[in-house]
Amino acid sequence: MSVESTIIAMAKAAKAASGKMATCPSEKKNKALIRIADKIEEASSHIQEENNKDLELATADGLSDAMIDRLTVKDATIKSMGDGLREVAGLHDPVGAVIKSWTRPNGLEISRMRIPLGVVGIIYESRPNVTVDAAGLCLKAGNAVVLRGGSEAHHSNQALASVVSRALKETGLPENAAQVVPVRDREAVNILLKQEAHIDLIIPRGGEGLIRFVVENSKIPVLKHYKGVCHVYVDESADLKMAEDICFNAKVQRPGVCNAMETMLVHASLADKFLPSMGKRFKDANVEIRGCQKTCTILTDASAATQEDWPAEYLGLVLAVKVVDNMDQAVSHISEYSSDHTEAIVTSDYSRARRFVKEVGSSVVLVNASTRFNDGGELGLGAEIGISTSRLHAFGPMGVDELTTTKFVVFGDGQVRV
Amino acid sequence: MSVESTIIAMAKAAKAASGKMATCPSEKKNKALIRIADKIEEASSHIQEENNKDLELATADGLSDAMIDRLTVKDATIKSMGDGLREVAGLHDPVGAVIKSWTRPNGLEISRMRIPLGVVGIIYESRPNVTVDAAGLCLKAGNAVVLRGGSEAHHSNQALASVVSRALKETGLPENAAQVVPVRDREAVNILLKQEAHIDLIIPRGGEGLIRFVVENSKIPVLKHYKGVCHVYVDESADLKMAEDICFNAKVQRPGVCNAMETMLVHASLADKFLPSMGKRFKDANVEIRGCQKTCTILTDASAATQEDWPAEYLGLVLAVKVVDNMDQAVSHISEYSSDHTEAIVTSDYSRARRFVKEVGSSVVLVNASTRFNDGGELGLGAEIGISTSRLHAFGPMGVDELTTTKFVVFGDGQVRV
Repeated sequence: MSVESTIIAMAKAAKAASGKMATCPSEKKNKALIRIADKIEEASSHIQEENNKDLELATADGLSDAMIDRLTVKDATIKSMGDGLREVAGLHDPVGAVIKSWTRPNGLEISRMRIPLGVVGIIYESRPNVTVDAAGLCLKAGNAVVLRGGSEAHHSNQALASVVSRALKETGLPENAAQVVPVRDREAVNILLKQEAHIDLIIPRGGEGLIRFVVENSKIPVLKHYKGVCHVYVDESADLKMAEDICFNAKVQRPGVCNAMETMLVHASLADKFLPSMGKRFKDANVEIRGCQKTCTILTDASAATQEDWPAEYLGLVLAVKVVDNMDQAVSHISEYSSDHTEAIVTSDYSRARRFVKEVGSSVVLVNASTRFNDGGELGLGAEIGISTSRLHAFGPMGVDELTTTKFVVFGDGQVRV
Repeated sequence: MSVESTIIAMAKAAKAASGKMATCPSEKKNKALIRIADKIEEASSHIQEENNKDLELATADGLSDAMIDRLTVKDATIKSMGDGLREVAGLHDPVGAVIKSWTRPNGLEISRMRIPLGVVGIIYESRPNVTVDAAGLCLKAGNAVVLRGGSEAHHSNQALASVVSRALKETGLPENAAQVVPVRDREAVNILLKQEAHIDLIIPRGGEGLIRFVVENSKIPVLKHYKGVCHVYVDESADLKMAEDICFNAKVQRPGVCNAMETMLVHASLADKFLPSMGKRFKDANVEIRGCQKTCTILTDASAATQEDWPAEYLGLVLAVKVVDNMDQAVSHISEYSSDHTEAIVTSDYSRARRFVKEVGSSVVLVNASTRFNDGGELGLGAEIGISTSRLHAFGPMGVDELTTTKFVVFGDGQVRV
């Protein structure tokens, strides 16, 4: 079969499976998720053998250590896949939930009921655990899913796919409810992105290059975020100890992720008091500071920030720092450079807290808390399938609810329109 | 300026305006909507003069009577634009509404707050009233809007645009919050559809050709419906009088619209009783029946349906009729031919009503009511900007709430992630 006919056949099979998934009872879906977890644990050594093939090729191809690290499946990876699936099995089932209902003057009873999206396509890079995590969430929400992992994880993903499809079969779910594209060729992605008749949503996960490629080529709606340029604004009225703890956590606790702080904005009136001790703490943690002029006069170790620093997502121990004269400047800096991902204010002032919440339009806006809380688990959504900075459908972390839409259900007793 | 630079400048200006619109108080937005209404009524004769230019060109170009009818602005059209705007001014303001909130074990208070989408692009055909109706709804929800009407309505739309922008200016709203593309060339649409950096959503309104063109060429998410192939299933247990009234209303009350019934499915056990009197009523209303074999034996006037009839959207006094042996057949016929728009069951059986609601995945599913109720006003959403059959963001009629998304707001007192 050609790549094209393989992909089209998969997309059609997924659509057919999604019809069955949509009315599948919670119990059956949960049983399948737990069965997948069990079988992955049972097949652990086989999966790791297949993963070794990928790792050998990756080493031969000279992939970076970071990429090889992401690609590696260890006992702990298997355990976390199993734990993740059991956690998803334990989440509420969004399908069938009525989120709102009302009655019309003519007696019609109207409600909006959650239903699955249909077929979700996930396009991702090296981490094989995405295969299992994403499939689990999509199935929980009653969707069928087509997964296309990176070609460097080909053997690992195929091994996982066969475990998943056996578990689906054994528990009476449609086998094609979760499929992994078996084609390594990038052409497969292009063809997948054209199956708008069969696929309802694409979620790309990976680097900015992959995501731009998907957005550029997709005929299917895409939920995505390119990057997280997250800001913390330390207001004039901030509790300095709290500000220091929040900024330190936001930058240092896990600097390589999208919800880490990249730029710290400090009100001029407390710069002299706040920056020296904050700067020392960052220095001790090996954080390199790139500051505005004012910052550099206070922190003499800091290097001068250039125009490239304000929109930068460092994903590492580098921080841009700017002293602002007032809150207006902070808000307009954010509105100019924000990636719509996550912004926080540290303040003890009631009206400035309100103003920040109102005027900052990012997907997660925090008052007196670390940007690192922009995460489905931390915000209480349960597991997440990703974070969206698309201002549509789901803005922010996406959990099982965000893998559904709603239909209108209308109960009448013979009403006709006049 | 080239077409490209004109469109890009408009899109950028809209993005800038959307920032101001997002925090605009309800009172100010409502005042602006009412001012637009007043000024349109004041400018009625000028608008109708400009409309006459379009009508002369349309006549010279040999446009169909139906198109000319849609294009015509009369006193009544002006009145309905004004009434529509005042109605929208009276709707609730969705922006800032908290739709859900909860507290995490660590004390973080999380909520999801409605915010505007940002910039909405509307691409539509001949009706000039869309210019005003769509602008009104987008502004109400705090969005900026870029409108691109059909070239045949160029003069009318430009006249309306200048009234709208004067009213915005007078009431202190950003002038560029509602702009009408002044370029007649179709190239303008193509360029508009590539402004994904500045425009958040595209809503096309018009015939299937226009909509397919938009979906095919857009880099921006599109909410749309191609067509409405709506079904009514008359179940074995239906009250025959109710079934007749609902089916008659669904087909005849306004046959040219997307929520009119196109196919009637009748349970075999009552076909002999139901079809003769139903058929007579349709015949008296000049409805042409295209029936399955069984239907044609009962209704001898009916012509035989072909495979083209089942997916057809007639938009006129033609109806496909099929006798089904059981509810399974009805549901699978719907799932095969439905456009995901609107489907109804007429039944007095509790479990079949439940089953229909559960198994039929269209945007509006009705029990014992006419398909004609799939309409924002009729379902209680207030005015609507269109109906979506995209299974994402908004599925079904879209009112002001559907022109918003939500952000997460997090209140803490110093929480950091551990």
